[in-house]
Amino acid sequence: MRTTTAWQGTGQSTTLQRASIERRDLRDDDIAVRIDYCGVCHSDLHALHGMTGKPTAGMVPGHEFTGTVTAVGPAVTGFTPGDRVAAGTIVDSCGECAMCRIGQENFCYQGATVTYGGADRIDGTTTLGAYSREYVLRAKFAYLLPEGLDPAAAAPLMCAGITMWEPLRAAGIGAGSQVAVAGLGGLGHLGVKLAAALGAEVTVLSRTPDKAEDARKLGAAALLVTTDEAQMKEAFGRFDLILDTIAAVHDLSPLLRLLAMEGTLSVLGAPLETKVRLMDLTFGRKNLSSSGTGGTKHTAELLTFAAEHNIAADVEVLPSAQVQEALGRLEKGDVRYRFVLDMSDLDS
Amino acid sequence: MRTTTAWQGTGQSTTLQRASIERRDLRDDDIAVRIDYCGVCHSDLHALHGMTGKPTAGMVPGHEFTGTVTAVGPAVTGFTPGDRVAAGTIVDSCGECAMCRIGQENFCYQGATVTYGGADRIDGTTTLGAYSREYVLRAKFAYLLPEGLDPAAAAPLMCAGITMWEPLRAAGIGAGSQVAVAGLGGLGHLGVKLAAALGAEVTVLSRTPDKAEDARKLGAAALLVTTDEAQMKEAFGRFDLILDTIAAVHDLSPLLRLLAMEGTLSVLGAPLETKVRLMDLTFGRKNLSSSGTGGTKHTAELLTFAAEHNIAADVEVLPSAQVQEALGRLEKGDVRYRFVLDMSDLDS
Repeated sequence: MRTTTAWQGTGQSTTLQRASIERRDLRDDDIAVRIDYCGVCHSDLHALHGMTGKPTAGMVPGHEFTGTVTAVGPAVTGFTPGDRVAAGTIVDSCGECAMCRIGQENFCYQGATVTYGGADRIDGTTTLGAYSREYVLRAKFAYLLPEGLDPAAAAPLMCAGITMWEPLRAAGIGAGSQVAVAGLGGLGHLGVKLAAALGAEVTVLSRTPDKAEDARKLGAAALLVTTDEAQMKEAFGRFDLILDTIAAVHDLSPLLRLLAMEGTLSVLGAPLETKVRLMDLTFGRKNLSSSGTGGTKHTAELLTFAAEHNIAADVEVLPSAQVQEALGRLEKGDVRYRFVLDMSDLDS
Repeated sequence: MRTTTAWQGTGQSTTLQRASIERRDLRDDDIAVRIDYCGVCHSDLHALHGMTGKPTAGMVPGHEFTGTVTAVGPAVTGFTPGDRVAAGTIVDSCGECAMCRIGQENFCYQGATVTYGGADRIDGTTTLGAYSREYVLRAKFAYLLPEGLDPAAAAPLMCAGITMWEPLRAAGIGAGSQVAVAGLGGLGHLGVKLAAALGAEVTVLSRTPDKAEDARKLGAAALLVTTDEAQMKEAFGRFDLILDTIAAVHDLSPLLRLLAMEGTLSVLGAPLETKVRLMDLTFGRKNLSSSGTGGTKHTAELLTFAAEHNIAADVEVLPSAQVQEALGRLEKGDVRYRFVLDMSDLDS
């Protein structure tokens, strides 16, 4: 086994401690990656809190990272030590189902192996995430980081970015499309950038006008204040796609009213159970949908697109030793727009 | 005013009585239609029971009918007395909004004027439906009945048929598509016929295998028994579109599991509020949608398609004096698949 250093859950609230953890010896198709940067995702907080409300001891969060290849298994082609790479929320999948065959491993019928808290498909051990200095994974789930992408700012593309990209692509968004983004956080700010780069006219939906200037800087044409009835009425029937990144449970009806005929409300902020009034879908034959992260096909496509359009996250980079500060501020929404941990401090 | 005979709600349960009602004198763009046949739709029952549980007195149900033009207003072109025509659930709309401009008057932003229980846009009177011998409506909302379509069997195309047709067309169903139809009643049996004629492989979803032979006769390739876990598991991820015509509130999760990636569950049987587990949409980026009847564009298209493919409803025709029997048996689900009232008995 290999040994590396990580930030590991203690089971006390969201408290992490620096700890030594093991990584497997490389299998034939594995690569080892020295992690340089790892983004701090809202779902890391959820996972630390525990789905049942009981904090999870022993877990290592982190599932959007960039780094440098340090070793490759004998069957690996396409990577050599020294390569800059990125990896995201999925580190393995069955490889045989209809979803895997089309590069949508995020929808693997057997369940994809997630980057942390998953069960390794070969030895059954629980995967430990990328708040650490090294990760070992199947080369298939790593991506060469294109030239020109900053490795710190690119890390959030691997979860937040791809979570926006797949529904944008599924909806065929391009020039002339009307896209709205509800919630301007880690996901939402990348949604605005990507939709605008695809040629859409983008509107940010927010409860207050405070973020109007930020929205414009990110590429939005406008900010619509959702508490302003006149603005909401004016925007009735406007959007082909709404990327709803709001993390809290909320009423979907006001958003559905903003959809154009056959438009789609894609709920991506993960409130698990929400009441839906079917009548809100009936008039205009509107679609309610959801999606989560992405498969290898669209992730590779996103990285190429991001490099071409010079798109990455707006990040605040902190030494990994400040992970507790990052989690605390994220919980309060105090970040524009994504914390990224610099893992180099784990060497000392 | 004109006078005609109708079956009118008494306010006592779903009891109707024969009564004389008034129709307006023809406006410039109106036609008068002698109603020959009118289908009995499940929503007629809902309307008679009253949305608040209190039966509605004075209402005349009926919104899928065929008949013969008897008079035309001076501005009417395209219809002359003696023409065979059909009309459906909508008799007027604003004509100016984005939906009306594209022939989707069923989604009129101002609210379409429905065939019964609506408010006439000019004089504000409540519209009275087609369980009667005559209807007067704007010519725009009447359709020439194509040669070869039987007027009794064609009547249900105007509500049940178009309710199936629009979501089939919106989903781009054609050769190679996998379509499921849940519920084999007035809507569902037309859904099977239309989807099969579009080239799709059609599966009927039913709680029991009893209707397997009927499903095949209608053009389905198979019947899937939804209470059979093995069959449901086998069909996981199969369908591009599920037309859900089940009238009672039911769990959508088992149906959503049957959808292929980016497939659509179109809920058309009208339970107004249903709990949705967003996670059922997340894996596979599935769509939940709904729709209701149709606009002039697709209705005209449907009639042409139905004539070309010799499609109409399987009907049981009863003299209109037996309307009470039809409603009672419909409430028990005892009809294959649509009652149609023959209105000629209202002359005597």
